[in-house]
Parts: sequence; structure tokens; C-alpha cells
Amino acid sequence: MLLRLLILAATLGIACSGTSAPPPQSSSSDASRGQIAGTNPAPDDSADWVRAAKDFASTRFSSLDQINRDTVKQLGVKVTFSTGIPKGHEAAPIVVNNTMYVVTPFPNVVFALDLTQAGAPLKWKYESKPLLAAQGVACCDVVNRGAAYQDGLLVFNALDNRTIALDAETGEERWVVQLGDINKGQTITMAPLIAKGKVLVGNSGGEMGVRGWLTALDLQSGDIAWRAYSTGPDKDVLIGPRFKPFYKQDRGTDLGVSTWPPDGWKTGGGSVWGWISYDPALNLIYYGTGNPGPWNSDQRPGDNKWSAAIFARDLDTGEAVWAYQWSPHDLWDYDGINEQILLDLPLNGQTRKVLIRPERNGYIYVLDRTTGEVISADQFVHVTSTLGVDLKTGRPTENPQKKPAVGMVTREVCPAAPGAKDWQPSAYSPQTGFLYVPANNLCMDHENVEANYIAGTPFVGANVRMYPGPGGNRGEYMAWDPVNRRKVWSLKEKYPVWSGTVVTAGGVAFYGTMEGWFKAVDATTGAVLWQFKTGSGIIGQPITYRGPDGKQYVAILSGVGGWSGAIVSGQLDPRDGTAALGFVNAMSDLPQDTTAGGMLYIFGLP
Amino acid sequence: MLLRLLILAATLGIACSGTSAPPPQSSSSDASRGQIAGTNPAPDDSADWVRAAKDFASTRFSSLDQINRDTVKQLGVKVTFSTGIPKGHEAAPIVVNNTMYVVTPFPNVVFALDLTQAGAPLKWKYESKPLLAAQGVACCDVVNRGAAYQDGLLVFNALDNRTIALDAETGEERWVVQLGDINKGQTITMAPLIAKGKVLVGNSGGEMGVRGWLTALDLQSGDIAWRAYSTGPDKDVLIGPRFKPFYKQDRGTDLGVSTWPPDGWKTGGGSVWGWISYDPALNLIYYGTGNPGPWNSDQRPGDNKWSAAIFARDLDTGEAVWAYQWSPHDLWDYDGINEQILLDLPLNGQTRKVLIRPERNGYIYVLDRTTGEVISADQFVHVTSTLGVDLKTGRPTENPQKKPAVGMVTREVCPAAPGAKDWQPSAYSPQTGFLYVPANNLCMDHENVEANYIAGTPFVGANVRMYPGPGGNRGEYMAWDPVNRRKVWSLKEKYPVWSGTVVTAGGVAFYGTMEGWFKAVDATTGAVLWQFKTGSGIIGQPITYRGPDGKQYVAILSGVGGWSGAIVSGQLDPRDGTAALGFVNAMSDLPQDTTAGGMLYIFGLP
Repeated sequence: MLLRLLILAATLGIACSGTSAPPPQSSSSDASRGQIAGTNPAPDDSADWVRAAKDFASTRFSSLDQINRDTVKQLGVKVTFSTGIPKGHEAAPIVVNNTMYVVTPFPNVVFALDLTQAGAPLKWKYESKPLLAAQGVACCDVVNRGAAYQDGLLVFNALDNRTIALDAETGEERWVVQLGDINKGQTITMAPLIAKGKVLVGNSGGEMGVRGWLTALDLQSGDIAWRAYSTGPDKDVLIGPRFKPFYKQDRGTDLGVSTWPPDGWKTGGGSVWGWISYDPALNLIYYGTGNPGPWNSDQRPGDNKWSAAIFARDLDTGEAVWAYQWSPHDLWDYDGINEQILLDLPLNGQTRKVLIRPERNGYIYVLDRTTGEVISADQFVHVTSTLGVDLKTGRPTENPQKKPAVGMVTREVCPAAPGAKDWQPSAYSPQTGFLYVPANNLCMDHENVEANYIAGTPFVGANVRMYPGPGGNRGEYMAWDPVNRRKVWSLKEKYPVWSGTVVTAGGVAFYGTMEGWFKAVDATTGAVLWQFKTGSGIIGQPITYRGPDGKQYVAILSGVGGWSGAIVSGQLDPRDGTAALGFVNAMSDLPQDTTAGGMLYIFGLP
Repeated sequence: MLLRLLILAATLGIACSGTSAPPPQSSSSDASRGQIAGTNPAPDDSADWVRAAKDFASTRFSSLDQINRDTVKQLGVKVTFSTGIPKGHEAAPIVVNNTMYVVTPFPNVVFALDLTQAGAPLKWKYESKPLLAAQGVACCDVVNRGAAYQDGLLVFNALDNRTIALDAETGEERWVVQLGDINKGQTITMAPLIAKGKVLVGNSGGEMGVRGWLTALDLQSGDIAWRAYSTGPDKDVLIGPRFKPFYKQDRGTDLGVSTWPPDGWKTGGGSVWGWISYDPALNLIYYGTGNPGPWNSDQRPGDNKWSAAIFARDLDTGEAVWAYQWSPHDLWDYDGINEQILLDLPLNGQTRKVLIRPERNGYIYVLDRTTGEVISADQFVHVTSTLGVDLKTGRPTENPQKKPAVGMVTREVCPAAPGAKDWQPSAYSPQTGFLYVPANNLCMDHENVEANYIAGTPFVGANVRMYPGPGGNRGEYMAWDPVNRRKVWSLKEKYPVWSGTVVTAGGVAFYGTMEGWFKAVDATTGAVLWQFKTGSGIIGQPITYRGPDGKQYVAILSGVGGWSGAIVSGQLDPRDGTAALGFVNAMSDLPQDTTAGGMLYIFGLP
């Protein structure tokens, strides 16, 4: 079947490339496809989209199939809604009970749109009015990645470190909790996860010398249930008797202190600004931590635990059950905050409880989510910074030719700081068995420079200039077969694919480009079936839902920005290549291809 | 036929209302329809849309008919483009040679979009970078009403009083002329008119004590050919031997000085921020002047010539040929800057060269454009401020019960300061013989207060609170029969209809609402045939053109703001009803119905 797909893809002119590792299995039969961990949503559950990642397993898969390979060509714009805020729109809209909720970038307005009425008029709006100064602390635009719904409450984060719960019906405030301090460089940009009566929230600020944490709040009251720091003594990290990391180097006492220079852990990053998954059967949550601070690795000898890592924690208590570092002593700003997709995957005749992680460092990992064992780690973009992942130790093998030092420019480091992929989340289809991955193809020149910590100011210490990787395309959108460990097809894009993606039972996957194209592709072949040019570049997360009329719709926020699009949303000078931490150097042509914006699009069939 | 229309309209549930004046003619046969003055555009000319008003006669009529009563239901969104500027978008897009040009509000960026390519990508953009302080001088949002094209040049005005000519193909600057000074309260918001090698530009700032003028520039060089002030001595107003006003009170020497208190004309307004029409056969241009300053009429006894007036001028020399004041000694901010539609109209058995003026003071005027004689003036909305127009003197008859004075609130003044209609331009169809008028239904409480002139600061002197007129609908869109002098049909709208309109040979008229609906109505019956909810409220000017594929398209800018929408675009506090010169009081619910935006929509058939 795979061969047939490759042939078909070649016929259609789709770029395909395998990985260098030979696939351990040669076919992709039905039996070899992964199943989504946890209870599959009942068909009716797919009408709504209550959290950014769709389900606890973070598949972003919808069982809706009205919009499919045959009908998708008829998609048209049904509703548009302007947020009025021309900054980067990274959020997923949320749909519950025929109401759509949109959280904007700073100043973090929430709009509730009534989907039962023509034109989806405003039902209510809530202005969170964050401190203006919060904008100055956000490293890379003033984005927000969305809200979450549970039990009548809509919960989201404001940039100035407040978590806010609203009555979803009326927009009235139920509770507001202040979780951090912009004067220490903290902000919050992530979409909270609500699970089993708890709201999980982490902080941003890895470029500001923050100390990262994940905090669990009681859904009803907003009271803090527990907080787990990413660095520091075990008691702060909630490491106790249940902690059983798979690899030797992760065992020991207070490694969150001893793997840093004195006091380094206090300003060591490990912020928690990405994605959280939840396995109800194991009662474990999974999430990653950001880069260690500062970027200048000379200033922080050691493994810098638990930065650039993943934790498995008990949801009720926050206790760490295992942890694993994707990039111990990270050299390149390889935050470990990406999505993890929880699947029960047939591997070598066994069904394994795994999590899949297309990681910033350039490898797609399959981990045993009960133990933290790395089952496989395959290169999915061009990588020069490391030479592979040693499955015995779990450690990536450093490339000695790329070792950075103060006073020396290291060239051709691939992937660049934003990684093979950044926060932009993948999707998984149990129908095809493929992972759909929005990715970057960027390399960089990098130089460590001295950084000084002053609270609330940048704590980076690196001169970076990024540029396109091999081939010149700065992004790609690919289907990856996690069983056979290979890229099935790939669509090259001019710019990093900085949007999320969704895949459906209709056999169609959706994603957006930074020029503003919203595309529907055949989930099996990658053939582009339909596309529409939205008004601004897309860095948002598409969703799909069933409307009150029983029809399937697809929604996306258009509004370029974020780290990759800061040159447009922040009106940065293209002549300063090091602006936006070196991203501007790779994006100087973006202003010729798109404009700032902030617009919701809802597409539907005639 | 009229009766049949009324019956049909009633069947369709359309609100119809006649005027109180009995119609002088009882039928609307083909022979009774007006013809557009000047040479009708040849069919091929209708492919493009080279100036805001479409033709020199300002009809905004297109001979395209692919999109018609039958097909309009199939309209869909083909292209969207975000300007990235969430302010009021009043401009008409311009289409020339398969390129669309969009001028944004401050900071007045021009985008050229390539209509020959999928998604209409950017061909070039030009950032005019006006002085930031210009924003503080603009009375009512920072709008711009569009560009004009001629002979390879695209010409537009920047808010800080610069007229800029660009190479339409490349976006390169050809010339830039500084015409005014923001430190004197001047800005420029109007769309220039290019005719016979001259660019006509007027200034804004009637609320800032400016002295209004119209300036003619040489199209090729930008050199000033002539400038005609609206107030002051005859030599400044370009009143000379050719000046033959129709009415006695307009004859005399230096009336622009003597009808003011000493020096009052120097800060007397009469700004020229609206529409200009041109009759090539007579070589006359027609344009109106704004309100006298300050609003407080007690401070400026006299007729305040030539504020709230219309001029006919020789295009080559600027010499005034006639003038007429719509509102001598204006009491209510009734700027006279609206569009004038030049028609050859059959009236009482004669074909008269007329101009039609749906005027801010509540009357639709028909003037003999060769002499300035008022042929008729009919009330088209609820009017209490005057008791009619005396055709012998040409003067509106003051309502003694509404005479304002310092220290006294005058209540129920209708229309309110924005008038029966403001700048939002009408259209005329030679097929139906009807004028299509976007209108307001607002009244106000008004109190004169002392105003002091300080250059570059507000010079108003009035406390105003506006509110809905009778019926509660704040706007309406109507068809008006200028021969039979009656309203044929009218669609009530919740908010002022602050958008322009276009009417086509397909028998369809388009307009937008401040909630964001873009509507197509049957030009004969007013039946709504199609509508689409754009992302923000619409105050722009629709256009229609033929694309490179031979298909007809319709385009509109969505982005609420302007005087009426300043509560949204300027984030004004709804609790201060006097904000935006009293408009906020009538629009406090607008933020519940729309959001700021800035998006071009292009609609087409499948």
C-alpha cells in the first residue's frame, strides 16, 4: 500500500522523501494503524470542539465526514468576523453548544458568536484588559493559543499571567487568578487544558530568565491545587517516591539544582507554554518544558534539568512519574514544548501505549508513555546539530562540528532555533495511520554572547541569523507514518508552516500558510484538493464542527505574527536580520506576501 | 408603473414612504428617466473603476450585467485581503488594467493587488508614512476615501496634507506635494478627482478652524495650477467677472468677508472634503463646502459665505461661475460636501441639465447646473430644523422653534449634525431612473457653547447628543425618483447607512451596513436578493468591475469607523454621549454588533 501511495504521490507531482533509517515494517495495513488512546469520542461528541487539541490524546482528528475528498472542492466562505487586533492569531476557535469562542492576542478579548443566527452575530464579548506592559515582556509577538471549555465554563489565559474563567453562556467572570508577574518576565500564552476538574496552566518567558512551572487550578474555584516547577529542588519539581525515569542520567536527587551552575536553576527557563495531553486510564498528564536560559550554553554547564524535557505527572497530585530530556544542556533553543499524541500503536507485534512527539530538535519520537522509554526517534527534517538519538541512553548524539562557544560563529546549524517544528501542533488520523506535521526548514548561524540577568528583561545571550534550509523552502507539511517510521508525502511551502492542522474522517487534512492560503489536502496522497486565500497569513489552528443545521464547517483564524511573523505584526525592520531573535533574517520577504490581520473564517458546503 | 412598484414592494414587505409634497408627474415612463451627463462610458470602459465615483457625472452606475437579479444569489467570496489597520475604511477600491488599488486609513498605505493571479497577491505597496500627529488633528477617525487613476498615475491624499502621485505599475513615487499644515488643524481625507490633466484636492478640518480650499494640481508635475478658498475676499475665492450666482443674496463684492464677523472668515471652515463632479461639455466642476466654524452660530452672525455651499467653477482657471448656499448661516453642522450627480433630466417637457444633491440638511435638490437655480428641493428624511426650501430665494425656511442660543438646549433637531446623509455617496441608474441613497435617521439635542480659537485644536462650541429619529431605525437605504420627486422604496437599517452604493445594468444595487452586512437589492423593488456578513462594519464604497477572466466582480472594504463608527475604531467610552461630537450617544450599542477591522472582499459568481 505504501508503494502504491508513493507512486500515486509521484504521479501527482508531490515531493516525497523517506528518512535515512530503513523502515522496520514494510506495509501499512489496517492492523498496523494506531488507535487513539482513551475513549474515542462518541459520534455526537464530534459536533463540538471544546479544546484546542480536540481530544485528550491531542489527535486533532474529527470523525465528521460531510466535507470529504469529493465535496471539499465546494467549500465556500460562510462567515467572517474581524477581531480588530492586527497581531498574530495562534488560537484555535472553540465550539460548544452552537456558540463559537475566539480568544484574541493581547489584549485578549474573548468573543462568543451565536452560530444559530445568520452571520453569527456577537452573543457577548469579554475584555480581559491585561496590563499594557505585558506586551513588552512577551518574547515573540503577543499571541494566545486559545481557550478550553468544561461544565459551562470557558477558561483562558491573559498575557499578564491571569487565568480567567467565564460563564460560557453569559460571558460573566466566574473567577480570575493571578499566577505570575510580568516584572519577572513571565507571561502566559498557552491554551489551558481542563481535565478531571482541573485547569492546567503553564508560564512563558524562556527568553526572560523565568523559572518555568505548570500549575493546576480547581475548575470550579480557581484555587491552586498544585504547582510543579521545571527546575530546582525535587520538592518544587514534585519529584518524590513515584518518580521512575527510564534513563539513568535522570535518576538522582535534586537534579534540577545540581545540573546547573549555582543558582542557575532560578533563572533557568523550562517554561511551560505548549501542549498538554492526558491519559485518563493512567491518570497521567504529559507536557514539555522550554529551553534553558540563557540561550548562551557556556553560561550553564550541565544537563540543565528539567529544561527541554517532558514530564509525566499524576493529574490529581502533580507528582512526577517519569521525565525525559529531549535536549539535555540544550545548545540551540530547542524548547521541548510540542504536542504529544497518545496512541495505542502496534509495534513489532505488540500494542504499545505510546506518545508521539515531532520534536523541535528534528526527530519524531515514539515514547512508551507508561515508562518514558524512547522506542524510536527518526529525523524528519534536515538535521546537522545532532547525529541521531542513542536509544540506549536516550540522548541525542552531539555533532562535535557544531559545538558553540563565545566568540565563535557556528554556521549551518539545522534545524534553527524554532526547530524542525515549533508549537504548531500536528494531527493524527486513525483512518490513514498517519501523523500530519506542519514543519520548518530553517538553519542558522549562531554565536554565544554574554547575557546578564536583570529581572523582566531579555536573558538570551546569542546572536542568531536564520535562513532557509536545503531546497530553499522554509516550510513543509508532511504525512508521517509512525509505525513504518517514514515520511509518506510532503508539500513544500515557501514559509514555515506555522499553523496547526486538523484531519477528518472525510479523508481531508487542513492547514494554512504564512501567505494566507488555507488548504485542504487528501489525507492519503497529499494532493491539494482546495485552497482559499485568507486576508492575512495563517498561524492559527483549524477546527471542524457540526453546525446547528447539521452541516459540517471548518474554521480558522487568519492573522500573521508570532515569532515567525513578527516582522509583519511587529513592523520590524527587515534590515536587522537579528531582530525577533534572528527570525527576521529568514523572513525579510514576508511583508511582500502578506499583511497583518485578525479575522475568523468559517467555511462550509453550499 | 409606480403604483405597480409600490404594490410589489408592499407584497415583499418593504417599507415605503412618499414625501409630503405631491408628485408633479404621475408616471415614470422610459422617457421620464434622466440620462447621465457627458459621454456615457463605452461598454469596455466599464471593465475598470478608475475613480471613486465611477464617472465624471458621479453616477456610480456600472453597465456590467453578469451579476444580475437572477445570478446575484450565487455570489461568493473570491478574495479577501487584510489591510492590517483596524480603523474606518471609507475608500473605494480602484481597478485599472487588472490591478486593484486600495488606500487605507492612516497611515495611508496603498496596496496594489494583481488580479490576474490566484488569491490576488501583492504587486507592490507604498507606505506614505504621514506625520503621527496628523491623527490627533482628524476630527472623526483617520479615514481616507480613495485614490484616482489617470494616464499611468495613481493619485491619493495622505492625512498630513500631502497629495502623492505614484507610478501605477511600479508604485514608485512620481511627485509629492505638501498642501496644508496639521498645525493649523488641516488634514486631507477626500478622494482626489482627476479631470483634463488636473488633480483636484480639498482640505478637511471644519471642526478645527481651518479655512477651506480646493486646489488644482497639474497631473504630470504636481504643480499648483490654482487654489480657490471657500471664504474671504473674492480674489481668494476666485470670484470675478464670470461669477453669476442665481440668487440675489449671493451677488455682491467680497461676500466671503462681509457675511462674517471681523476676521471670522479666516477660521470659518468651508472645508472641501467631499465630492467633485465634472461636466466636460460645460468644462465646469461642481463641489460643495463644509460647515462654517465654529459650530456655535452665535459667534458668527451673517450668512457665512461660502460655507455649506456649492460652487461651479471653470476647471481650467478655477474661476467661480456660480455658487449657492444650501444652509446660509448654518446652525447645525450641515456641511454641504455631498456628491452631485449630473444628469440630463426630462422635467415638465424639457430636458434640463441638472445636478442632483441629496443634501445633509434633509432635502434632495435638483439644480440647473448651468445657472445654480434650484428646480426642486424635497424632504427625504424627517426634518424639523427647517420648514422647507423657498424656491424663490433658494433659502431654507428656518424653524423658529429650533433657533439655537448659548445657554439653551434645543431639542429634537432633525436631521442631527451628520445630516440626512453625510459623505456616503449615492448612485443613479439610467435604467430605473432612480437615485439610490444611503441615509441617516438621527435627531439631536444641541446647545451652543463658547468656542475659542487656538490653532490646531478643536473649534466647535456645541454640546451635542444624537439619538434615533422617528421609528427608531438610525438609517435607511432608499430609491428616489428625481423626476416624480418621491421615495420609491426604503429599507430601514438599525444603524446609519454609512457606506457608499453602486447600481448596475444587472438591475442590482449594493450597499453595506454598520453591522457588516453587504447587501444586494433589486434596483426596481428594493427586495434584498443576497447578503453576506463581512468581518467588520461597512462604511466603504462598493465597486464592480470585469476581471481578467471576463467575469464581473464586486468589491468592498469592510472596516467600521469614521464619525459614525468612531466608538468602535477609536474605542470611545459609550458612557460619554457627547464623544465624537455627540455621535457616541446614538451609537452606544454598536460595539455589541461589530468589531474593528480592515479587509477587502471581492465577490464573484461561481
